[in-house]
Amino acid sequence: MLQIDRERFLRLMNEQANIGATADGGLSRPALSEADMVVRAWFAAQAQDAGLIYRVDGAGNQSAILPAADDDAKTLLIGSHLDSVPNGGRYDGALGVVAGLEALLTLKDHEVSLPFHVEVINFTDEEGCLRGLLGSSAAAGLLDERSLENVRGGRDALLTGLARAGISTDSVLAARRDVSKLHGYIEVHVEQGTRLEDAGIDIGVVTSIVGVRSFWLTFEGEAAHAGTRPMPQRKDAMWGASAMVQRARQLVMGEYDPGVVNFGAVHAAPGAFNIVPATVRLALEFRHGEAARLDAMEDALLKLARDVAGEFDLNLHVEAVDRIAPAPMDEGMMQRVEAAVQRCSLKSTRLMSFAGHDAQCMAQVTPSVMYFVPSVGGISHNPAEYTSDDDCINAANVMLHAILGGTNG
Amino acid sequence: MLQIDRERFLRLMNEQANIGATADGGLSRPALSEADMVVRAWFAAQAQDAGLIYRVDGAGNQSAILPAADDDAKTLLIGSHLDSVPNGGRYDGALGVVAGLEALLTLKDHEVSLPFHVEVINFTDEEGCLRGLLGSSAAAGLLDERSLENVRGGRDALLTGLARAGISTDSVLAARRDVSKLHGYIEVHVEQGTRLEDAGIDIGVVTSIVGVRSFWLTFEGEAAHAGTRPMPQRKDAMWGASAMVQRARQLVMGEYDPGVVNFGAVHAAPGAFNIVPATVRLALEFRHGEAARLDAMEDALLKLARDVAGEFDLNLHVEAVDRIAPAPMDEGMMQRVEAAVQRCSLKSTRLMSFAGHDAQCMAQVTPSVMYFVPSVGGISHNPAEYTSDDDCINAANVMLHAILGGTNG
Repeated sequence: MLQIDRERFLRLMNEQANIGATADGGLSRPALSEADMVVRAWFAAQAQDAGLIYRVDGAGNQSAILPAADDDAKTLLIGSHLDSVPNGGRYDGALGVVAGLEALLTLKDHEVSLPFHVEVINFTDEEGCLRGLLGSSAAAGLLDERSLENVRGGRDALLTGLARAGISTDSVLAARRDVSKLHGYIEVHVEQGTRLEDAGIDIGVVTSIVGVRSFWLTFEGEAAHAGTRPMPQRKDAMWGASAMVQRARQLVMGEYDPGVVNFGAVHAAPGAFNIVPATVRLALEFRHGEAARLDAMEDALLKLARDVAGEFDLNLHVEAVDRIAPAPMDEGMMQRVEAAVQRCSLKSTRLMSFAGHDAQCMAQVTPSVMYFVPSVGGISHNPAEYTSDDDCINAANVMLHAILGGTNG
Repeated sequence: MLQIDRERFLRLMNEQANIGATADGGLSRPALSEADMVVRAWFAAQAQDAGLIYRVDGAGNQSAILPAADDDAKTLLIGSHLDSVPNGGRYDGALGVVAGLEALLTLKDHEVSLPFHVEVINFTDEEGCLRGLLGSSAAAGLLDERSLENVRGGRDALLTGLARAGISTDSVLAARRDVSKLHGYIEVHVEQGTRLEDAGIDIGVVTSIVGVRSFWLTFEGEAAHAGTRPMPQRKDAMWGASAMVQRARQLVMGEYDPGVVNFGAVHAAPGAFNIVPATVRLALEFRHGEAARLDAMEDALLKLARDVAGEFDLNLHVEAVDRIAPAPMDEGMMQRVEAAVQRCSLKSTRLMSFAGHDAQCMAQVTPSVMYFVPSVGGISHNPAEYTSDDDCINAANVMLHAILGGTNG
């Protein structure tokens, strides 16, 4: 059975991890930073030295292509990202790009002929130091001018980064792929959780990338002297906010599993020991992989917030912040990965992805699938992020056989 | 029966309220500000014009004294304050000083002879724009050099204010009264709550001024991705903090009434929608009028915080912030005020004071009492603070008869 070249693959993983490496064993490679420019040059060199076709599009997405005999064939995309969060780990994103590259090198070594082009993409700015999912959104045609205005890292940082790569917002908007020419999309990533490790399973086939919705909930009561106002007469915004956190936790764990909810930030005003808080603003975020359940969660959580406000005699203001649709993966592509897992004599399970990935953009335009390998302790966005060499090798071998799709090897 | 001069008294109340008046009907007279210096000059002029003895001590406390025939007689003190919070109301503090002054003027008009000197004091900086309870603490001998170093409004503001009044920290520390010469202390104040208004009662005789304790509680968990970390595995500091607020509320309302608890401020870190909060800092303050119950509240609330931290797998750090002992009022002095209330054909009840007052300092050195008149809607530290003319007049008539103490009139 065809297998990747383990030594070359681990060498490539090490080479990329040395670019932007930090003293504590992690790496810091924010999108289009100096370190990211170096790793991009490294990727281009790998593709060109191996005799693969190398291209960069208007969004800065880099491609290494193993062409089919027929120029008019469709293209199977293999994607992930070489950028990292500041002080991140050496696997998040990079594993997917390098596993895809190694699969291509193996196919080329063995002169395998496929009925579709295979293109490994390093998507620009998945992590969002500039905008988030920038390259994959551009490739999928999901961007317009407005979506590049109020970006997460600020407009100036975006323009500076793009200029460093010789591109512009205009070229980003022009980077949309011709979707009629796409055969599908496959991405491998570290899990960033412990479900695989806990279950002792090699591969997690993602059924859906969760949708995310976020809101600011502002509970509004009345400031009062924290001594003289009797407790039964207080309109204490903290009471509403704290009841909301407690009950939302119970509601989601009890009725919306595997959906999750988080209250990541909170602000009380006026904010003194001796004043009953007039307002408490609470950052609500929740996630689910199924659109209907996500809708039901939103209804239930906002109803809960209204009920809690009523119970404590408070007003409630709800401000929508963000809304990302769930991205179900393609059943045929999931089975293709599962067949590859079997071929490699590994075990797989199906699970949701609770983090965002480039696959959620590509799923909107072509049959897509994503799979995970274990992350030790689930540690993520941290220098201590770790996935064993064996699991990395599994990632690349499954990619090789998912590309072959039972046609060969 | 002897009564105060209503018209003169209401005129005096209006005159003081015009000094530092704000457009919305309140007043802004922070301690030793320009406006406070003007009202101090006004107080001095009232005392001197009426032929009372006028004195200022090293803490800037101003006194108007109606002397007894015997120079060696003890002194009955009547105190409150003419300073206000920024943008405060026209009754908080001023009512007590002006009611005392009017009682003195009435006694002088009627040439009443008493076996003790009667001294009405305008205490410096009750509200704490500089230090809080500055004048009464100085008079009671409760200050030392250290207690004037890290003051609430900053050391510079304190020195600037003292200089404006021609005094210094040295003179403040020297302002201690000879307590062997004190006969007792009486203070009238607006309630800053609604217990009297709700019950339709004219006068509230204070049994104790509550003790106050405050702490920062820091719940410490672990930051994690708000999508990928399964909820049962999270160490979410917000869960602990919110459970603490909910359960402390139930505990105090259920078992420590009329004690009160407040969580006036909260800070979560790192503070992003998509990160499980690693730490939440919660400002805890609680009050009770009885020392033993206050101790029991502290034990129960800190135990609750530890239990909650344990339940959610969090660490807890407790940092003591402030500690003010309860000040029980003197039973004999309470009965003296209650007799005056009866004499005025009014109704009284006994209650605790949940706010701090100059009486809590004086209670440590001489038999003291405090009584309240109703505050409409309990509105306090606000331009909309209001007490009716009739209730102000009751305040002054009860003061007159409490001074007389059944001896006369």
